[in-house]
Amino acid sequence: MNHQQLFKTIKKKRSFLCVGLDSETDKIPASVKGRDRVFEFNRRIIDSTHKFAVAYKPNVAFYECEGASGWHTLEKTVAYIKENHPGIFVIADAKRGVIGNTSKMYAKAFLENMPFDAVTVAPYMGEDSVTPFLSYKDKWVVLLALTSNKGAIDFQYHNEDGIKLFERVLSVSRNWGNTDNLMYVVGATRAEMLKDIRKLVPDHFLLVPGVGAQGGSLEEVARYGMNTSCGLLVNSSRNIIFADNTENFDKVAGEKAHEIQLEMEKYLTERNLV
Amino acid sequence: MNHQQLFKTIKKKRSFLCVGLDSETDKIPASVKGRDRVFEFNRRIIDSTHKFAVAYKPNVAFYECEGASGWHTLEKTVAYIKENHPGIFVIADAKRGVIGNTSKMYAKAFLENMPFDAVTVAPYMGEDSVTPFLSYKDKWVVLLALTSNKGAIDFQYHNEDGIKLFERVLSVSRNWGNTDNLMYVVGATRAEMLKDIRKLVPDHFLLVPGVGAQGGSLEEVARYGMNTSCGLLVNSSRNIIFADNTENFDKVAGEKAHEIQLEMEKYLTERNLV
Repeated sequence: MNHQQLFKTIKKKRSFLCVGLDSETDKIPASVKGRDRVFEFNRRIIDSTHKFAVAYKPNVAFYECEGASGWHTLEKTVAYIKENHPGIFVIADAKRGVIGNTSKMYAKAFLENMPFDAVTVAPYMGEDSVTPFLSYKDKWVVLLALTSNKGAIDFQYHNEDGIKLFERVLSVSRNWGNTDNLMYVVGATRAEMLKDIRKLVPDHFLLVPGVGAQGGSLEEVARYGMNTSCGLLVNSSRNIIFADNTENFDKVAGEKAHEIQLEMEKYLTERNLV
Repeated sequence: MNHQQLFKTIKKKRSFLCVGLDSETDKIPASVKGRDRVFEFNRRIIDSTHKFAVAYKPNVAFYECEGASGWHTLEKTVAYIKENHPGIFVIADAKRGVIGNTSKMYAKAFLENMPFDAVTVAPYMGEDSVTPFLSYKDKWVVLLALTSNKGAIDFQYHNEDGIKLFERVLSVSRNWGNTDNLMYVVGATRAEMLKDIRKLVPDHFLLVPGVGAQGGSLEEVARYGMNTSCGLLVNSSRNIIFADNTENFDKVAGEKAHEIQLEMEKYLTERNLV
C-alpha cells in the first residue's frame, strides 16, 4: 500500500483510526474461551471494529511474551486481517533497531514471512539500521521520533545548537526513504508541537499514539497535524479493546471505535478531505 | 548471576569471551541435517566452545525471522546452555526498547519465560522503558550506548554543550540500576574512546561487539576498557561460528574460541586478575 492508497482508504472510511491490538492475556474477558484465546479475542475485536478503522497495530511484545505459541497467534492475527479485510493497513509494533544483516532478518520476519504493511523501528543506531526495511515495495518503516512516555525527556530532547534529538531524527531520516515508505511515530505530549514537526516533515504520515487513554486530544492532533492527504494515523488501544469486560466486549469495542470514527469524520469534513 | 559471580567465572575460565549465536540458516554448513538444523548447529557450536567462553549471545532476529519455529529454536538453545553449562551467562540480543507495560511483557518473555540472564535494550525511550527489566533479581539489562556500525554517527554523537548523546545515555542511565544489573554495549570504533567511557562508568561491565570480523583490536580494548574486575565481555560471532564450512565446523569454531581465550588470558594475567 502506498501513500495515495492509504489516503484513499481514509477517505472511503472517513476515518484515520488505528486500533492497537495490545492484547494482554490477563486482560481478556473470561468469557473468551478456546485453545487460542488471544486470537479469538483479536478476531472478535477485528470483526466489530474494522468498519471504523483504517489500520491495526499488534504490539509484538504482547505476543512474544507467550513464546512460540504467542508468535503463532501473531501470525494468525495478521493473516486473518489480510484475508478478511484486505484494504486495511497492518503495522507490526516491534520497535526494532539493529544493524545491517540483523535488520534484514527482522524485515524478513515481518514484511516477508508475515503480511505486515509496516514495522516500527527505533532510530538510535542510525541509517544502516533502517534502510534494510525500506527495500520492500509498498511496505513501510514507522520510525520512532517523539514518544509520549515520561522517559522521552531523558534523551529525545537532547539539544544540539537548538536542535532537539527528535528533530534531528526527523530531518536526517526523511531522506532515507520517501512519503510512500516512511512514516513517523510522533507522540506529542502537547499537540501544538505537531505544528513544528510539520515544518520538518510536511508530507509524511504520522502515527500518533496515546489519544484517548493517555489523555491526548484528537481535536488538537487533527488541528496541528493534518495535512492535505490527512497524513495522520491516530492509534487507540486499551480505550477500544478493553472498554468492556463482559460477553459484549466486542460490541462495546465497535461502539467506541465508531465514536472515534465519527469525530475523525468531522475533522476530515472540516478540511474538505472527504 | 551478579557482578561478583560473573567475575569469578571470568577468572576460572581465564576468558571474557562472549560467543554470538548469529545463526543465520543460510550460512549453516550443509552437513548439518535434521528437523531443527539451527538448533543442531548451535548445540555443536556450544559443545565445542563452552570451555573458552563465559557468555553466549543469541541474536534474536535470526530466530524470529523463522517465525514460531525459530522462536522454539531460541527457547531450546538457551535451555540447552543452562542445562549443560549452568555457569554460563546468556544474553538475549533483542535490542528492545518500549514503554511501561510493554517493557514488562518483553522482560517476561526473555527473563522469566526463558532463562536468559540478560537482555539488550535500546535507550531512545528513556528510563521507563528500561526499569521494568531491572526488577528481576540476578538478571541484567545490557543498554545500548555506543554502537560500532556506520549509522552510529547519525544520532549517537549529537552533541549538547560538549556532551555527546551516548555519553548522556551513560551518565543518565547509570543510576537506573547498579553494577549488578546494568551493563552497556560499547562498540568503540577507536578503542581509546573506552578511556573516556570508563570515566563515566568505571565499574560497570561493558559488552564490546565486533572485535575480530569487524576489525577491532582485542589488545586495545583490554588496555583501555579493563577494570579491576575485568569489566569486559568481548563478543565474537561470525569469526567463530562460521570460521569453517565443512563437517568439522565445530572443531574449527572451538579452535578459534581457544585462540581468543588464550589472548584474553594474557591480558588478564598482565593485570594480575588471574
